[in-house]
Amino acid sequence: MVESAKQKYKVSFLPHERKIEVAAGESLIRAALQAGVHVNASCGGGGVCGKCRVLVEDGQVSEGFSDRLTEEDAARGYRLACLARIDSDVTIRIPVESSIDASALNKQVAPRRTATITELDFDTLKEQGLFLPPVIKQYLEIPPPDAQNNMPDVSRLIEGLRQSSEWHKLELTLPVIRKLPAVLRADNFKVTATLVKPVRDDGKTLITNIQAGDTSDKSYAIALDIGTTTVYCQLIDLATGECLGEHGDFNGQISYGEDVISRIMYAEKPGGLETLQQVVVETINRAVNKAVKKSGVDKENISTITIAGNTTMTQLLLAIDPRYLRRSPYVPASTLYPPFVATSIGIDLDEQTIALVFPQISSYVGGDIVAGIMGSGMYRNEELTLFLDIGTNAELVIGNKDWLACTACSAGPAFEGGGIEFGMRAAKGAIEDFLVDPVTFEPMILTIGDEQPKGICGSGLLTMAAVMFEMGLINNNGRFNRDLGTPRIRSTNGIWEYVVAWKDETQIDRDITLSEVDIENLIRAKGAIYSGCMTLLEEVGLTMDSIEKIILAGGFGSYIDLEKAMTLGLLPEIDPARVTYIGNGSLLGARMSALTNAIRKDVVEVTRRMTNFELSETPSYMNNYIAAMFIPHTEIEKFPRLKERMMAKKKQ
Amino acid sequence: MVESAKQKYKVSFLPHERKIEVAAGESLIRAALQAGVHVNASCGGGGVCGKCRVLVEDGQVSEGFSDRLTEEDAARGYRLACLARIDSDVTIRIPVESSIDASALNKQVAPRRTATITELDFDTLKEQGLFLPPVIKQYLEIPPPDAQNNMPDVSRLIEGLRQSSEWHKLELTLPVIRKLPAVLRADNFKVTATLVKPVRDDGKTLITNIQAGDTSDKSYAIALDIGTTTVYCQLIDLATGECLGEHGDFNGQISYGEDVISRIMYAEKPGGLETLQQVVVETINRAVNKAVKKSGVDKENISTITIAGNTTMTQLLLAIDPRYLRRSPYVPASTLYPPFVATSIGIDLDEQTIALVFPQISSYVGGDIVAGIMGSGMYRNEELTLFLDIGTNAELVIGNKDWLACTACSAGPAFEGGGIEFGMRAAKGAIEDFLVDPVTFEPMILTIGDEQPKGICGSGLLTMAAVMFEMGLINNNGRFNRDLGTPRIRSTNGIWEYVVAWKDETQIDRDITLSEVDIENLIRAKGAIYSGCMTLLEEVGLTMDSIEKIILAGGFGSYIDLEKAMTLGLLPEIDPARVTYIGNGSLLGARMSALTNAIRKDVVEVTRRMTNFELSETPSYMNNYIAAMFIPHTEIEKFPRLKERMMAKKKQ
Repeated sequence: MVESAKQKYKVSFLPHERKIEVAAGESLIRAALQAGVHVNASCGGGGVCGKCRVLVEDGQVSEGFSDRLTEEDAARGYRLACLARIDSDVTIRIPVESSIDASALNKQVAPRRTATITELDFDTLKEQGLFLPPVIKQYLEIPPPDAQNNMPDVSRLIEGLRQSSEWHKLELTLPVIRKLPAVLRADNFKVTATLVKPVRDDGKTLITNIQAGDTSDKSYAIALDIGTTTVYCQLIDLATGECLGEHGDFNGQISYGEDVISRIMYAEKPGGLETLQQVVVETINRAVNKAVKKSGVDKENISTITIAGNTTMTQLLLAIDPRYLRRSPYVPASTLYPPFVATSIGIDLDEQTIALVFPQISSYVGGDIVAGIMGSGMYRNEELTLFLDIGTNAELVIGNKDWLACTACSAGPAFEGGGIEFGMRAAKGAIEDFLVDPVTFEPMILTIGDEQPKGICGSGLLTMAAVMFEMGLINNNGRFNRDLGTPRIRSTNGIWEYVVAWKDETQIDRDITLSEVDIENLIRAKGAIYSGCMTLLEEVGLTMDSIEKIILAGGFGSYIDLEKAMTLGLLPEIDPARVTYIGNGSLLGARMSALTNAIRKDVVEVTRRMTNFELSETPSYMNNYIAAMFIPHTEIEKFPRLKERMMAKKKQ
Repeated sequence: MVESAKQKYKVSFLPHERKIEVAAGESLIRAALQAGVHVNASCGGGGVCGKCRVLVEDGQVSEGFSDRLTEEDAARGYRLACLARIDSDVTIRIPVESSIDASALNKQVAPRRTATITELDFDTLKEQGLFLPPVIKQYLEIPPPDAQNNMPDVSRLIEGLRQSSEWHKLELTLPVIRKLPAVLRADNFKVTATLVKPVRDDGKTLITNIQAGDTSDKSYAIALDIGTTTVYCQLIDLATGECLGEHGDFNGQISYGEDVISRIMYAEKPGGLETLQQVVVETINRAVNKAVKKSGVDKENISTITIAGNTTMTQLLLAIDPRYLRRSPYVPASTLYPPFVATSIGIDLDEQTIALVFPQISSYVGGDIVAGIMGSGMYRNEELTLFLDIGTNAELVIGNKDWLACTACSAGPAFEGGGIEFGMRAAKGAIEDFLVDPVTFEPMILTIGDEQPKGICGSGLLTMAAVMFEMGLINNNGRFNRDLGTPRIRSTNGIWEYVVAWKDETQIDRDITLSEVDIENLIRAKGAIYSGCMTLLEEVGLTMDSIEKIILAGGFGSYIDLEKAMTLGLLPEIDPARVTYIGNGSLLGARMSALTNAIRKDVVEVTRRMTNFELSETPSYMNNYIAAMFIPHTEIEKFPRLKERMMAKKKQ
């Protein structure tokens, strides 16, 4: 938790009388937004529109000047909120039109909350006795052979290992036997053996490498996440657990199809599978070589590469025909894959490096999710936890240390900006945060990179829809209130929409809008996920309110405004403090697996006890889906905090 | 025992009054030789010299005519013994010069005896419950997946196998997983799985192949012997145990050195090891492909290739540097080798075929000997057995079901015709059998192929020396009796020799002789082996007379005249009926290993309990060697039967 070390300051907003604590250096406008305080802003946060003029009444801010601000105003303490940085506890007054009733100021949405970010904590791992890498490098000084004792080199090595530690059932591969005679004699029978521990206690320990002299302090592993879009690689020091080098790259398969279905279709063409296999291996090799180069380690000291990917990515990498993954009844080739020599599939590592592949649950719940479950420790938790990886396909796992159930649902591309007229990926110029003036319905928009807006990203979309719902711009069907008297709500070609940014405020020279069609797509996406979760719980005889903890994984999870997600009915309403974000769960799991053999042991049991549900084969799913096609849900009782806020507003 | 089925006839020789039983169609001259009856013969047995005139007094012979025989003689019943074939019980009179004392007729050597030939006996194997191939092909009809049960293909297969039989700890390789989805669906989930049973009961069963439909009746294995000189391959039907195709070829490595030492020296040159590995694989592939073609089986149904070879051949095949095999303290790389995919070292079989390599004991007692021990069943015997494979290097194993000790000794090339002036390999024209007239000292020679002689092969050499010793031509130092008054014993350039065939009787236009130098080389060779055996016994506290059984292996063993070998002191004196010959023990063991998993299980234990002795490190060896440098030995008491014969002769 790097953030926690930073100096925090208190910010008080007047006349709203809202207080918030933010990190030193935060911009005033982001602090306001986080506090749910509207400040007019239409340029995305880059100081262009000059609308976000605020008065610093007390405390220190730096910057905040612009030619949009008169010298006189600056002298009186006015600053542009988007440019000003908080340097102490401050009191800020937001200029409000005199016509506005003070009560309207309280017509605010819940403050912004993102999930607590979980990072690997080695001290805890060590405390729990979990920091036990599956690979051990053992230094040995073996007595050299003589006329009285000329047992074979392999026997001599095994004898040496047995005397140094309680190794049993030791096994060598042919390549190691090939190296052995020369290596043993290179430094007078002083050698370091690399040992990969068995998954089962009664299994065999594999001697995967043998090196002259003492190299026991040089022990590394690679963690690899193969995503449909991106491939991430981390080089890990097994002595410290530290990541020494890291590299991410776009999966070269993208040219052959954006999503898993189009990849599978390509793989079905003659030569298609071979092409896709080679292409992803090229991406992997680029990433691996960059991470290796950054870290400066010798490939010979990299013992394992742990690979996590969804079922399609895994089968494509292993050159296993994926055609049955997309055809009913959706059968993957295997759950478990045997360890194999990484070079055998073309991975550019030493010939002794062993590849370990995360198990798959089903065609649409793959090794990336299993890795996330293992890496997050969810399978060891007491609390009933919802694990959620949101993308075009959303994967859901519910359970705890006693049971686990999982499913996948097609959310559609809305959360990644797809199927939304002005949708875009989370890149510079994407509107990622939004508030609306409760009286004028003017927007406050913040973009990634504080640029003038280009479009709307997934988390921005989610926030906009939630804010519009709470501020009464749309109803629980996602339809606009057409009587608010603002030019921003209009009908174009018979479709109602809200103008988020006027043409001249954008980088794209068009009005950026959010239409009822966009909102309907969003509702379908969130409805699919929520109803998937509900169906899963029903199948095990539980209800949504039994969820005690949520773990978010995947790129989307870090940006998501939890309160907004609950308002919209994407997530069940729980204390946001009980929602954690693990980032790339697949990579986390792969890394954890390299660091602790407990993961490799447990994962077999976890995959065995995880029950997969195919929603298409679960009759209640469609009913649940239809019920979830409202904001937040047909049954508002499932969202008591929101219901309370709605009741309070109605009373005003 | 194919021979035993043949019709036998009694042959009586006069005036010697010797009787012998031979197979129908045998030549008269070979029958005489086997009975120890001398018949003059100098052309090798091809009817050229006409010296072997004999009189058929009673019974039927066919052929035996020649222009060397007058019509008159033929009418009187004379035939050429080398051409005449025995067609009934017969009485044959050998013409003897009138000057000869009848008592001289009894101055004969022991009749020729070769070892009983052991062949694989499937009925016995089956009776003993040993006919249990390590590979099983299991046909399964698996329920196809549906919406209610869409478990992965691998899980479905394993479930099917578990229901059909008690398979546990099943494991698949990546190539099999790759095939699985298509194969399962090719014939509506009717499949045949190939399972390789574990060596240990708690080990894993490997699923090495999966085929559509029922192919369980098509299950084959290859047995491969890699000799320094020749490579033999047999294709075995695992349903019946039969050999369906067989092929032998010279090891292509011969061009890089005749013996293991010169191969090792070549392997030490840059690129040498790679070259030798490729060359032997080429030989293997030729032999394998011919055997496969002959048998007409599909390579996909060949599940295993079991490989036996000496330690050098094994390391060269596996591309393991052999340099330490020829350097004190003579350390091999490994005893046991892991199973591997045959294609991984270049063997031209299906990618699912698993290679199993026989373990090595030491640098000079290799997998060929271990295979012989396993194939002969010696390790299961009660009797104390001497296992002997004679070549340039002789390997000896002594023991029984309770203990085993082994060693190797350098016999030199004498037994293969090397280091002997007129020595040659056992090919056409090689003198393979010999007697000498007790009065005139004229020879009776028989050659391989009944051609005029070209030289002397190993077994011929052994027989000649033994006969000359028993007939008093040489003394127990191997020196010629110079006072016998025959022109055949002469000194050339100061070296005494016996003229076996005069120049004009040979194919090489030179006198073929056997010199004292040749005999000394032979004595060194037999002395090395006998003293090796003695040393081994002494090391375990036993003496030579405790040996109850002898098993001979290798090409040499089938030709060897056991009585002559005992006369010469190569073998200890035991009842020749207790000497068996197993042919190519290495190939036999490889074949047995394909047929019964008991071999694979036992071999680990056998190699563990076999004690290897390095003669060079055993002080008593040199004393034993010097004592063995006589015919038969310094201590004649070790050879009571010979001693008795010698005493009897002295009395005459």
